[in-house]
Amino acid sequence: MDITAVGGYKAVGRNMTGVSIGNDTVALDNGLRLDMLQMYDADISDIKKVNVEQLIKLDVIPEYERLRNVRAQIISHGHLDHIGALPFTRPRVPIISTPYPIEIGRREYREGDFFAVEYNEHFSVSKRIKVEFIPVTHSIPETSLVLLRTSEGNVVYACDYKLDDHSALGKTDYGRLRKVGHEGVKLLIVESTRVKEAGKTSSENVVRSKLQDVLNFIDDGLIVATTFSSHIERIQMILDEVEKTGRKPVILGHSMLNHTELAERFDYLDMPPDARVYGTPKAIKYALNEVKRNREDYFVLATGHQAEPESVLIRMLEGQFNFRFQKRDSVLFCANVIPVPLNIAQRTVLESKLQSKGVRIFKDIHVSGHASKEDHRRLLELLKPGHIIPCHGTIEQRSAWVALASEEGYELNKNTHLINNGQTIKI
Amino acid sequence: MDITAVGGYKAVGRNMTGVSIGNDTVALDNGLRLDMLQMYDADISDIKKVNVEQLIKLDVIPEYERLRNVRAQIISHGHLDHIGALPFTRPRVPIISTPYPIEIGRREYREGDFFAVEYNEHFSVSKRIKVEFIPVTHSIPETSLVLLRTSEGNVVYACDYKLDDHSALGKTDYGRLRKVGHEGVKLLIVESTRVKEAGKTSSENVVRSKLQDVLNFIDDGLIVATTFSSHIERIQMILDEVEKTGRKPVILGHSMLNHTELAERFDYLDMPPDARVYGTPKAIKYALNEVKRNREDYFVLATGHQAEPESVLIRMLEGQFNFRFQKRDSVLFCANVIPVPLNIAQRTVLESKLQSKGVRIFKDIHVSGHASKEDHRRLLELLKPGHIIPCHGTIEQRSAWVALASEEGYELNKNTHLINNGQTIKI
Amino acid sequence: MDITAVGGYKAVGRNMTGVSIGNDTVALDNGLRLDMLQMYDADISDIKKVNVEQLIKLDVIPEYERLRNVRAQIISHGHLDHIGALPFTRPRVPIISTPYPIEIGRREYREGDFFAVEYNEHFSVSKRIKVEFIPVTHSIPETSLVLLRTSEGNVVYACDYKLDDHSALGKTDYGRLRKVGHEGVKLLIVESTRVKEAGKTSSENVVRSKLQDVLNFIDDGLIVATTFSSHIERIQMILDEVEKTGRKPVILGHSMLNHTELAERFDYLDMPPDARVYGTPKAIKYALNEVKRNREDYFVLATGHQAEPESVLIRMLEGQFNFRFQKRDSVLFCANVIPVPLNIAQRTVLESKLQSKGVRIFKDIHVSGHASKEDHRRLLELLKPGHIIPCHGTIEQRSAWVALASEEGYELNKNTHLINNGQTIKI
Amino acid sequence: MDITAVGGYKAVGRNMTGVSIGNDTVALDNGLRLDMLQMYDADISDIKKVNVEQLIKLDVIPEYERLRNVRAQIISHGHLDHIGALPFTRPRVPIISTPYPIEIGRREYREGDFFAVEYNEHFSVSKRIKVEFIPVTHSIPETSLVLLRTSEGNVVYACDYKLDDHSALGKTDYGRLRKVGHEGVKLLIVESTRVKEAGKTSSENVVRSKLQDVLNFIDDGLIVATTFSSHIERIQMILDEVEKTGRKPVILGHSMLNHTELAERFDYLDMPPDARVYGTPKAIKYALNEVKRNREDYFVLATGHQAEPESVLIRMLEGQFNFRFQKRDSVLFCANVIPVPLNIAQRTVLESKLQSKGVRIFKDIHVSGHASKEDHRRLLELLKPGHIIPCHGTIEQRSAWVALASEEGYELNKNTHLINNGQTIKI
Repeated sequence: MDITAVGGYKAVGRNMTGVSIGNDTVALDNGLRLDMLQMYDADISDIKKVNVEQLIKLDVIPEYERLRNVRAQIISHGHLDHIGALPFTRPRVPIISTPYPIEIGRREYREGDFFAVEYNEHFSVSKRIKVEFIPVTHSIPETSLVLLRTSEGNVVYACDYKLDDHSALGKTDYGRLRKVGHEGVKLLIVESTRVKEAGKTSSENVVRSKLQDVLNFIDDGLIVATTFSSHIERIQMILDEVEKTGRKPVILGHSMLNHTELAERFDYLDMPPDARVYGTPKAIKYALNEVKRNREDYFVLATGHQAEPESVLIRMLEGQFNFRFQKRDSVLFCANVIPVPLNIAQRTVLESKLQSKGVRIFKDIHVSGHASKEDHRRLLELLKPGHIIPCHGTIEQRSAWVALASEEGYELNKNTHLINNGQTIKI
Repeated sequence: MDITAVGGYKAVGRNMTGVSIGNDTVALDNGLRLDMLQMYDADISDIKKVNVEQLIKLDVIPEYERLRNVRAQIISHGHLDHIGALPFTRPRVPIISTPYPIEIGRREYREGDFFAVEYNEHFSVSKRIKVEFIPVTHSIPETSLVLLRTSEGNVVYACDYKLDDHSALGKTDYGRLRKVGHEGVKLLIVESTRVKEAGKTSSENVVRSKLQDVLNFIDDGLIVATTFSSHIERIQMILDEVEKTGRKPVILGHSMLNHTELAERFDYLDMPPDARVYGTPKAIKYALNEVKRNREDYFVLATGHQAEPESVLIRMLEGQFNFRFQKRDSVLFCANVIPVPLNIAQRTVLESKLQSKGVRIFKDIHVSGHASKEDHRRLLELLKPGHIIPCHGTIEQRSAWVALASEEGYELNKNTHLINNGQTIKI
Repeated sequence: MDITAVGGYKAVGRNMTGVSIGNDTVALDNGLRLDMLQMYDADISDIKKVNVEQLIKLDVIPEYERLRNVRAQIISHGHLDHIGALPFTRPRVPIISTPYPIEIGRREYREGDFFAVEYNEHFSVSKRIKVEFIPVTHSIPETSLVLLRTSEGNVVYACDYKLDDHSALGKTDYGRLRKVGHEGVKLLIVESTRVKEAGKTSSENVVRSKLQDVLNFIDDGLIVATTFSSHIERIQMILDEVEKTGRKPVILGHSMLNHTELAERFDYLDMPPDARVYGTPKAIKYALNEVKRNREDYFVLATGHQAEPESVLIRMLEGQFNFRFQKRDSVLFCANVIPVPLNIAQRTVLESKLQSKGVRIFKDIHVSGHASKEDHRRLLELLKPGHIIPCHGTIEQRSAWVALASEEGYELNKNTHLINNGQTIKI
Repeated sequence: MDITAVGGYKAVGRNMTGVSIGNDTVALDNGLRLDMLQMYDADISDIKKVNVEQLIKLDVIPEYERLRNVRAQIISHGHLDHIGALPFTRPRVPIISTPYPIEIGRREYREGDFFAVEYNEHFSVSKRIKVEFIPVTHSIPETSLVLLRTSEGNVVYACDYKLDDHSALGKTDYGRLRKVGHEGVKLLIVESTRVKEAGKTSSENVVRSKLQDVLNFIDDGLIVATTFSSHIERIQMILDEVEKTGRKPVILGHSMLNHTELAERFDYLDMPPDARVYGTPKAIKYALNEVKRNREDYFVLATGHQAEPESVLIRMLEGQFNFRFQKRDSVLFCANVIPVPLNIAQRTVLESKLQSKGVRIFKDIHVSGHASKEDHRRLLELLKPGHIIPCHGTIEQRSAWVALASEEGYELNKNTHLINNGQTIKI
């Protein structure tokens, strides 16, 4: 069995791993690296004009062409660092995932040959490889641990996940994982973004407690919150908690509109009857016109958690939409700052401007969607894999997986492997 | 009205403020600075041998003698940085607080002339000064905002507090505060430890969510948790949540014994029937003898959150009590590391040793007991004080209060005042 | 004597202090706050269109109009945070400094009524106020401690300075300072940017050692260095050391051209005969055309130490001027990163892009131009002022001056004073 | 060729690498990990009572017994993390180094079978292995790059070193390195402690500039400096610079006495005629008795840069030796704080106590002795090794070497190798 590190084996993002059994290769994920896009001001809005060589060279997309004999492109979940490179790498093979990520993928890459596989079913990629999706918790609906049943043994691809046993949306299928573990797992390919963090990643329930506490505290002004548009469980929780305050929820932003529409269609989101979503600048301006006259009656959920220049929050702050923040308004950040310098800078400027207008800021109403050290240890206990290949991280981050694995009796280069983008290893 | 900064106006700890109306002075709090004790290895176990001059010089206790014409010593709550210097400064005047802190004070300073005042009552210190205690939330039972009604106007002393509206133990009396605000407050003396933090301090409910999540996650081994012995609300919550797991709680440590006994007597703690508390080394050894044979049946709550050399957790780790940690045991830190270098070092060593034994570590199951920026802003809104004197902090920390006050229209040196230990200001 | 904090008493930058004796006021410095310009994308290139109210509100320039009865505008040195607001505040009184800053000021504000005063001379602002400039070391030629001899006592304004006794350019006049100290100084107004740093600020000699070490080490490729255009002593040192390597120095950038021209005219810079300076894009392109063909023969000194988007270094990196960086080229940062988020982000991106091209990076070939704790203590010893007002810093930074002053027997609010922008204090 | 990672392949310290050609193994270095000693309060003063198993388990010494067929123990230089485990592992084979480290080794391990090899000579370990020492710069005299000429190719062991071309003591033999590079190097085993740092490590000349600047600045009080006792080049520089101030140097501490005596004997240190060295408490007390009466005439160089509890500086501070620090004394730290929590804590306490006595503190008069990224890149250029094994560092630190190697065309697992303690790799 040959494992090829295509993307995500040098830095966080643009994930792709190849698994080859004889002449049959599957590509796992096909993602973007967003901070590089931003760093190099790469314009990908007009896909026809994009220079793919250039995007590969800038570490924005994985070098898909490095893989030979690809029979299928498998997608673990719908985040852009796992699915967003499809329109650039343009795989001409079946693209396989569960229905929700498939739908996201279709919007990105219209010409793709997509196949939706339900949980508890499987898809035969070739004689030698079958794929099955096992439900797991993360920060977007229908995230899966991918099980490849191959003629040379089982491979599990766990990128990304956390173990949240109080999630309102989706459950980790521990029974299935335990069963696969008993059957035998030859190789675990597993994300490394937060393996260095002690303990387990907190449940979304902790966010609910924080949010209740803050909403109960604020007694006047307009409340504006921001979070990840794709984080449907979080959005549902915010809407549920806002309901209790009597404020009317107004959801603003193109990306919010897209994600909530899709999630409603799949029954992952149960929008309260008085909630309204507006995507276009014109509609947003119209909505804010009403909001600003009765600030205490409304709760706005808007794009802009990373202070992206084109987001609704930033444009509200800059006086577009005929809107002005006022003293005694509140802004809730239901997201962390992604720790790359540009985001830190943009966010600092945003907070500083809000503060100069007398707006109250509430931060860190958030927990991560990525497994910490004890989540990972638990996965090891369930699967007891023969080999481990950490992915999705710098070599320093992946090295922390080596440390965890060695606590559990694994050994570097023998059954724990560090490989870099472009390398192939035989297991 | 003269305000004298005696202690806590240069660094966190050893709080004491004097308020003088004509010839009548009251001393507010009388605390220790624990990190200085530790830094200078000062031995205060034998009170008779302690050199008080030396303790003042080392910034361990406030210079009580600086105050003239003291009529009463008032205590806001039972933490040692507010009450712990009593046996050294030995005030010969009535020592006044609510019943619970009084009881703690009595244990520290037996010869004291203590007076317990109930909430909704008041105590006349002199013709010119009456004192009233207003309930507020913090991390020890019966924490009060102290209201001095004087012939020259009302003074509120808010040191320490947070606004936790989901606290299981005690409530902030917002009605009373609002009423006092309407009456008029000439001066607010207010703590500064976390005024720089954005937002509000999270409720203890957030700790409950985190704890539930972790307890539900751990499925084998012994669980050992550690928290502040005086934090009765936290201890109650831990015991309640442990109850649901079916494990038997065993509470270890002299200081745990003292505080839980007192809290039970005052009905602040409702100990589950199967809980046991052991204070002496012999009793602890006896208890652990049983615990270690049925690790999965027990939950140990022990002293040692700051890795204090004499704590139960450290002694368990070092193999005393015939106990050894094993792989698959878990340690839960329901406390932060107090951010002074010695504590950071001790805690790092502790975690490193636990890890080398394969113990799983869960950290930060904790929220602060101190007000953040928005809690403080709320207090300003409620009291609308004429003047503000930030206390309990370095000049940098207290300067952050000046920044908040200026957002609310106050002005430095006019109605917001920075004074240092040893200085007196006329309001 | 009334002292008015106009700018620099809340954050670093846009310095202005007013000193009033009866009806006569002098304004000390008149500076910009550059990071606010950048944060708010304020466009000041077309001065006629600038909204001055707006610039004041955004904390970009000081509110000059707050001062009454101004008789003179005094400038301590030519940095923009001390002189750059002149074209916006447009004072109609004599603008007084030593010849070099006067020349810089004239370029910024053509209509100004400038008076140059030589060292060892003085200027009578009014019957009550005479001004004298005392030489001190800093990072631009002709930086002065400003001595105001007033009918109510001497005032010294020390903003900015360091004590560098190995400076190749200029000397601190210790004799004069000691003499003024003996005469008596009523008030010292003094910068706070680095008073928290232990020890003394290192001499420029330390930069020379580092630079020699690096230049001696690099044995191939092109060397590009960047530093502050106004830091003439640093530029001289770089040119002197480059001379020893046999490489030809090429200086690029509009701002470099301006500052080196002026410094040469004043004999503060002795340009080596083979050095060339190019300011316009066309000239820079022409110069780089030659440089890139003989990379090992050249040393380029360019603007861009903060990765400013319009700087020469950034445009070289982005392939403008027909230039490309190559593997084995080296970039030397003879400047620190100014620690505001936007600069940190821009610089990180710059380093990352250089690294991706295989360019070797040498950082921190730099020492600060601002006094550390021991430099400040020495100034106290020399002047023995009656009162101290820290300026040029956040309240936290200025609070650190209070701590230093108290080590030397001063007392807050008695003879050390913290005031905020907009406040006046009587001494 | 088999390479065995014995120690230093998980954390910094206790270095040992085995190189085996057929049945012949050489052990490279044999060091202690000092922070673990301190963390576990391990007492190694009475060697006879030490439990060697325990020391291995605590990661204090390398597991020497893991190596089979050892023919020689080679020592690269005299620092304890390279030589200090000799008395515990007690190798019964020839111990080989250049004369100076041999002398240090002999003092540690009296029964050892030591062989001194001069530069430009070689020693035949067996038919298959010859060893040669190549001079390189570091922070102790006679540091060597170790060249193993084996029947299967050349191996270079570069642990530790920096490239300081302005060192007053010793030179890097670039000619020899270049020649070895031309001959061919199969494998480079190389330290990783600072490979993440950009640029090159600064020369000791930079320390000289800083020291001159500080010594010139201080004009009264006693000056006490502290640095590494084994850093003879630094000590010589300090003594030379002190000479110029006219102060008499007094060197205090057992370890200072040992190292300076040895260095003088080897002509690596040229002690000024008026310098005095005192090692015993009694002698130190006697010396300080004179010093304290004429503080401005003396310069004290003492042990204690890490605030070790038994050091002279700490004991001076605590009032032993009948000595008291006074206001206007100065302490110079010619060393960094070793970044482990206990050292950081001890040093913070030390500085805080000094400050409370009014002592002036000057820090960071220091540069590292370890290679930065560009030093390492230069070594690669000189040696052009076929394979690279980073040693002496955590896996994160060693991973940074992988990143550098990949910039130079090397590939992980192909010709760059990460191995952990206890592992053997075939090259």
